[in-house]
Amino acid sequence: MAPAINLNADMGESTGGADIARDLALLDHVTSASIACGFHAGDPEVMHRVVAAAAARGVSIGAHPGFHDREGFGRREIRMSPAGIEHMVAYQIGALDGIARLAASTITHVKPHGALYNMAAADSGYAMAIARAIHALDRALIFIVPPGSAMERAGRDLGLAIAREGFPDRAYDDNGHLVPRGVPGAVIKNPAAIAERALRMACDGEIVAASGKRLKLAVDTLCIHGDEPCAVDNARAVRAALDASAWSTVSLPTLLR
Amino acid sequence: MAPAINLNADMGESTGGADIARDLALLDHVTSASIACGFHAGDPEVMHRVVAAAAARGVSIGAHPGFHDREGFGRREIRMSPAGIEHMVAYQIGALDGIARLAASTITHVKPHGALYNMAAADSGYAMAIARAIHALDRALIFIVPPGSAMERAGRDLGLAIAREGFPDRAYDDNGHLVPRGVPGAVIKNPAAIAERALRMACDGEIVAASGKRLKLAVDTLCIHGDEPCAVDNARAVRAALDASAWSTVSLPTLLR
Amino acid sequence: MAPAINLNADMGESTGGADIARDLALLDHVTSASIACGFHAGDPEVMHRVVAAAAARGVSIGAHPGFHDREGFGRREIRMSPAGIEHMVAYQIGALDGIARLAASTITHVKPHGALYNMAAADSGYAMAIARAIHALDRALIFIVPPGSAMERAGRDLGLAIAREGFPDRAYDDNGHLVPRGVPGAVIKNPAAIAERALRMACDGEIVAASGKRLKLAVDTLCIHGDEPCAVDNARAVRAALDASAWSTVSLPTLLR
Amino acid sequence: MAPAINLNADMGESTGGADIARDLALLDHVTSASIACGFHAGDPEVMHRVVAAAAARGVSIGAHPGFHDREGFGRREIRMSPAGIEHMVAYQIGALDGIARLAASTITHVKPHGALYNMAAADSGYAMAIARAIHALDRALIFIVPPGSAMERAGRDLGLAIAREGFPDRAYDDNGHLVPRGVPGAVIKNPAAIAERALRMACDGEIVAASGKRLKLAVDTLCIHGDEPCAVDNARAVRAALDASAWSTVSLPTLLR
Repeated sequence: MAPAINLNADMGESTGGADIARDLALLDHVTSASIACGFHAGDPEVMHRVVAAAAARGVSIGAHPGFHDREGFGRREIRMSPAGIEHMVAYQIGALDGIARLAASTITHVKPHGALYNMAAADSGYAMAIARAIHALDRALIFIVPPGSAMERAGRDLGLAIAREGFPDRAYDDNGHLVPRGVPGAVIKNPAAIAERALRMACDGEIVAASGKRLKLAVDTLCIHGDEPCAVDNARAVRAALDASAWSTVSLPTLLR
Repeated sequence: MAPAINLNADMGESTGGADIARDLALLDHVTSASIACGFHAGDPEVMHRVVAAAAARGVSIGAHPGFHDREGFGRREIRMSPAGIEHMVAYQIGALDGIARLAASTITHVKPHGALYNMAAADSGYAMAIARAIHALDRALIFIVPPGSAMERAGRDLGLAIAREGFPDRAYDDNGHLVPRGVPGAVIKNPAAIAERALRMACDGEIVAASGKRLKLAVDTLCIHGDEPCAVDNARAVRAALDASAWSTVSLPTLLR
Repeated sequence: MAPAINLNADMGESTGGADIARDLALLDHVTSASIACGFHAGDPEVMHRVVAAAAARGVSIGAHPGFHDREGFGRREIRMSPAGIEHMVAYQIGALDGIARLAASTITHVKPHGALYNMAAADSGYAMAIARAIHALDRALIFIVPPGSAMERAGRDLGLAIAREGFPDRAYDDNGHLVPRGVPGAVIKNPAAIAERALRMACDGEIVAASGKRLKLAVDTLCIHGDEPCAVDNARAVRAALDASAWSTVSLPTLLR
Repeated sequence: MAPAINLNADMGESTGGADIARDLALLDHVTSASIACGFHAGDPEVMHRVVAAAAARGVSIGAHPGFHDREGFGRREIRMSPAGIEHMVAYQIGALDGIARLAASTITHVKPHGALYNMAAADSGYAMAIARAIHALDRALIFIVPPGSAMERAGRDLGLAIAREGFPDRAYDDNGHLVPRGVPGAVIKNPAAIAERALRMACDGEIVAASGKRLKLAVDTLCIHGDEPCAVDNARAVRAALDASAWSTVSLPTLLR
């Protein structure tokens, strides 16, 4: 059996009937979609369109909860209590689950967005709050986490299925952390370079840091940021590279079956 | 077996950590609570507190979806497509369901709020959109409707369990419709009068219209508006009157079992 | 002196740090910009960026107030009282004025957005509410209106400076009203056709309706919808056509001086 | 001439047509009102009602800008860039200014709300951002600040008129900082105790810290928190105590004339 990996992208991050053409194009290349739930972006209409389009293409879907902060696109840190995080995440998973049920579909994973993801990667209180919300709603939901993070530990503590995530379109520092977006070079824009990095993550379990240092990074899923202008080119390049390799690109439920 | 009726109130309509003292007091008198889902009012925090408090008192809970319009408190008409209504309602039911699952509770009914309720009472397109959302999410959910409305017909068409609702704290016109809020006398403020009207609805299946005319109005549940300043006094008075009668006041799932 | 016309576009209709590249490109072709004020779209950050960019190019700016409805992009009708409209519009004009003052710029016009524009075009109560808000905030502000509408009458009644607007990228019916967006053919997509229609409006004061009938339509300003995918091509084509004609394309304050 | 002090309260912090009875009652006792601007609380309708009521009573008004965070009531820290703070504050001051102009009134001060106030008290980047927004919009606006804070320094650096604020209804630590709300005893509930503390601040320029230590605290304005359940009792008690003393309670513009 061919070794397998998942390819995911964030979606549904527009509002107000905006064009979802980029989302639809991405769905031709990825095998899982994380869908914004109306707090940092998205709305019931867009969520429904993306859920239906994913279902039509056999792409698995998950909730992409973020802080309630449209201006900041969920990328600004907001100080909340762990209980507040838990309620906020449960609300958003539930909301997408409602939309999915309406579309006769099913959500199979959860991936926090933006500042929530970053804060929970480092803060075990936040991480456990998210894991508790997932566990309470449906313990079969797969939790997408940065490898080695507080999120991975929280998920494992509660017995959740875990998918460790790598970002071929983002630079890493020598500690295996993402270089912050504000830093020049943090976001990699060249589809060929991104595809090369994706292959190295998938096949070799490693990443070349910004310094040139090679780091071990075991991942189950590769993320393509859906809000980059060249997101579709990036996804196409990564998928083509994986398809040309020995690796099979599958949905998260298939991968973790 | 004693004849039975349900007593419901709308709740969770504050935001930002505001006091939920009135909600907690109401929960001592009602047997079902319709909880705002974050669109016209409410937020994950308040929703969770009300869900937990209801569960602790054995009060059944339901979703109270409304238009996304905080300034208007969901009482302004917004023109949406039936599909948009369907998505919006599914989102809100799902969101409350997420919060309820986190609190190890279960939602058992759906009652639209404000302008959405009023528009759907008269418009079969809106009514069917709401009924379809309920049916898709969980066909066991009870649909609270005005008796004889497009909502009642839509619910019955899809085979949903129906609870017909009366408003002892609101004036009715001769056609059995609520007198609009803007009209003087539309909202009845006297707890004793409200209790008397509640008893007449429960026991006799009738209501005295603003004109003095007696109308037939078969109801399964009586609503006390939770946002009235004297809501708690009204609920206490109605409950005491029912308790003093032959009628048993029960939760919606018990009533419709 | 060359005859003159104004060319305007709606802008700042993104949120959350989204790309404003299309806005920047449009600013190279138009002479006035109507900027979303945070209710139907936009936020303080985007507003500031667009205000600064317009100032740098000598493009005059105005407030583009809409209903508080991001999901509906301000295109859904919301029933409000005239007083509520007045407060809502004053809030939004003031908000943009605050941003403009921060950028050492000045707003010189007001143009309602979407459903608010359409409702006020036909409803004198809404139209007067908007005109009163403009008049109270700064009676020198220019009011962009559909020719012959309730808005034009309201503005003239209060003595406001008026700029009558035509839409070369939209189809008209035989009564000179816009064909609703839902109708096939309502939005014209061909830049050359749009430029031809713009010239005819500017030079001949007429428009060819969807039926082929020629109608008189005296306009002071031509609008290019900024949210169309080919908005920049449309604006470029219209501007080039005007530049090649005897007409001078100027800002609103210059036109109405 | 009698020595003078200002008494201020935060207002307009409800939404959706909620009762503003507490605001109206507070306006009988205070001499300045800081009005929420729609980000952490409030909406155009409520803002207009409070502005009009303040004007009718000769109470001076100011903007009370906060983070865009209704769930957190603006009390959660949000990490923003100084430029983002500047735009956000300019937007909100402008918005209230728009409402005030509609009501033929004028805003005369600015007081940040909640977490924005607390962060700016300690962070000179935030403090300067707020001061720059005030200065750009109207350099005559009075800036309410905690004595000795980064906000006071920023305001003085830009030449703004400053009103130093004390909180008789809040406990102070030995460094003259407010005891955080989460700590037991942080919020003082006894009107008589609050009045006694207010008098000591006004007349003696000192406060007794939670430890019992007496601290110097020179203030120009005393704040009564408008969202406390007994806010009106507190305001009445403080005002009565001041009226019974040699001190005159005046509006901010009168005080700083």
